[in-house]
Formats: sequence, C-alpha cells, structure tokens
Amino acid sequence: MKNRIITISREFGSGGRTIGKEVAEKLGIPCYDQQLIEKASEESGLAKEFIAEKGEYTAQKGWFANAFSDRSINGMSTQDYLWLVQRKVILDIAEKGPCVIVGRCADYILKDTADCLRVFVHSDMEKRMERIVKLYGEKEDTPEKRLKDKDKKRSAYYHFYTDMEWGSVENYDILLNSGTLGIEKCVDIIAGLY
Amino acid sequence: MKNRIITISREFGSGGRTIGKEVAEKLGIPCYDQQLIEKASEESGLAKEFIAEKGEYTAQKGWFANAFSDRSINGMSTQDYLWLVQRKVILDIAEKGPCVIVGRCADYILKDTADCLRVFVHSDMEKRMERIVKLYGEKEDTPEKRLKDKDKKRSAYYHFYTDMEWGSVENYDILLNSGTLGIEKCVDIIAGLY
Repeated sequence: MKNRIITISREFGSGGRTIGKEVAEKLGIPCYDQQLIEKASEESGLAKEFIAEKGEYTAQKGWFANAFSDRSINGMSTQDYLWLVQRKVILDIAEKGPCVIVGRCADYILKDTADCLRVFVHSDMEKRMERIVKLYGEKEDTPEKRLKDKDKKRSAYYHFYTDMEWGSVENYDILLNSGTLGIEKCVDIIAGLY
Repeated sequence: MKNRIITISREFGSGGRTIGKEVAEKLGIPCYDQQLIEKASEESGLAKEFIAEKGEYTAQKGWFANAFSDRSINGMSTQDYLWLVQRKVILDIAEKGPCVIVGRCADYILKDTADCLRVFVHSDMEKRMERIVKLYGEKEDTPEKRLKDKDKKRSAYYHFYTDMEWGSVENYDILLNSGTLGIEKCVDIIAGLY
C-alpha cells in the first residue's frame, strides 16, 4: 500500500512553505522541509547551508560553470551527488508514512512510488515582493530582482533533473494562487483534498 | 459593487463545461455557455454554429489566411467583429449579477470590471481522450489529434486577443486537474471558494 504524500512546489515568496507546514499540522502528519535538509546532511556529510542553497537551485555562476568547477565526489559533481542523496532521503521518507514534502522535486521523485497530491503554489509579483521583504528584510538587490533570480534558478534546477517544466499545469493536480486566495484558503483546500 | 463571477477556462475534454454547470447549480446562479452563444447570435446576426466554432478557436486554415479571406463587416474581419460582440455580451452578463461563464476569454475580458474567480481546468491526454470519445463519438481523426488540434487553436485564439498565455499559472486563481481530482472534487472546491 502506497503512502499518501502531499508534495508542494512553490514560487519563492508565495508562502508555499507556510502552507505546507499548516496543512501538515491540520492533518497531524509530518512536514519535511528543514528536516529534509538535516537528513540529507547526515547522509551525505555535506553542510546544511550547502544543501539549502544548492539542493533546489543552480549555482550562482550558472549551471555549466559550476558543474566543472565544483569539487567532485567519485567523478560526480557535488550538485549531482546532492541530487542522489536528496532523492534517497525523499524516497525513504515516503516509505515511512504519510507526510508533506516542500520543494526539492519531490513530485517528480515520488511519481511512481507514492500516492501523491502534487500541489503548486504561486502568486503575483507584488504580493511576493511584500512577503519576502517582511520575512527576509531588504537586501542589496531589489525584491523583484531577488524573486526573478530565485525563480529562474529553481526552474532551471527542476528542468535539469526532471526534464519537465516547473510550474507547468500538466505536472500538478492543483495549482493555487496564494495571493488572491489567501494562505488559509489554500491550506483548507489542500487539507480537504487529502 | 462588482458582481462575483466565476470564469472557467478549460482544455478540450477536461470536463470544464460540466464543472461550470454543476458549480452554478450548486450555487444557484446562472451558467453561461450555450446561452452566451445564443445572446451573441442575437446581437450580431451571426449563425450560432459560426459563433460556437469561431468564438474560441482560430479558423481551420490558419489565422492569417482567414483574416484576409473572411467576409468583412465595416472593414473588420468577421472574427474580430465576433470578438467585439462576445466581449459586449460578457460585459453585459457580468453587469446583471453573479454567474459562471465558461470559456471565451471571459477571465481576460472581465479582469478590470468584475470580481472574478479565474479557474482553469486541465487533465492528462488519456483521460481527455476517453471523455471525448464517450461524449462525441469516434471521428476520422484520432482522439489525440482532435485534442491537440483544439488545444492549439484555443490557445492561439486566447493569445491573439489577450496577449497572455492560455493555461499559464499567473493568469488564474486556481488550476485543477479534473483527471486526478475527479469532476466532483473540482465542483466542491470551486463552489467552496465562492
């Protein structure tokens, strides 16, 4: 019997992580986000900061530059090694029992092994800008540039490892605009579908 | 006070029309689909069959060929004239009271004049093939070709008149996979959001 898993992909600043956490609380099941990073760190010996940054994004200097300049492990780039570790951690988690998993291509990784509700959370630029400034403060780059940069890297990472388009309707069961619907409505809908 | 309207865009064969009708029934508000064609026919003098076919799709022979070969009305192509008529009908309908409107770029047309819940319904190719064969029977073209053809034309029509991408997440509040969620769940979610 396959465990029921909710995977949440999200645009940066859309509140997808918060939604994941609240859905899990409501359903009384675990939510893997920070914990996933910790498990991947234990399994791999890689630093948590490295996993948090590179486990969902292409590197700052561009993917190809990074693939060749990274230290390699058994002839594998650190990024590819991390992909395999994260993949294993996600498969292990999904074996254990029902849960919510935020990001890290879990929708793709679990597509043949778990009974998944694949959610994508998005929002308009303005609401996301407001949110990231409130959560992470002002930075040197404008909020808009930060968002576009993150989206671009997350999308490139997803495409590179899954060969699918991030945020494209056909890959999800439900796509929610948290900006117009509100976080609480999104939580209710997802929990109601479970 | 703006009326609350639900607009439903949908992939051909996804059951979006049925979902629209059931949502409207559940909420006790009218659903405009066939009625919209009738109103547009009354306003314009154009045949219902012409409106049903050309009011959402680019013409069989390709958009440009058609734009020049069509009879023109006041120097306008029939297709453009129909767009203006449909637009007026949709704006009139939205003035009257809350309702569900299926297709015909209503999401775009009403974006500044109504309080809209913009829904997009999609489904995987296999489920849609099953559905159209059940509903409309076998035809000379394979179901897959029929679906791809319809999607392509609907998407081109939408893009031509709205300059936005049909089925792209940022244009909707919620996008539902009727194939994995089921028609009934989709109806419940939309009605619940109203």
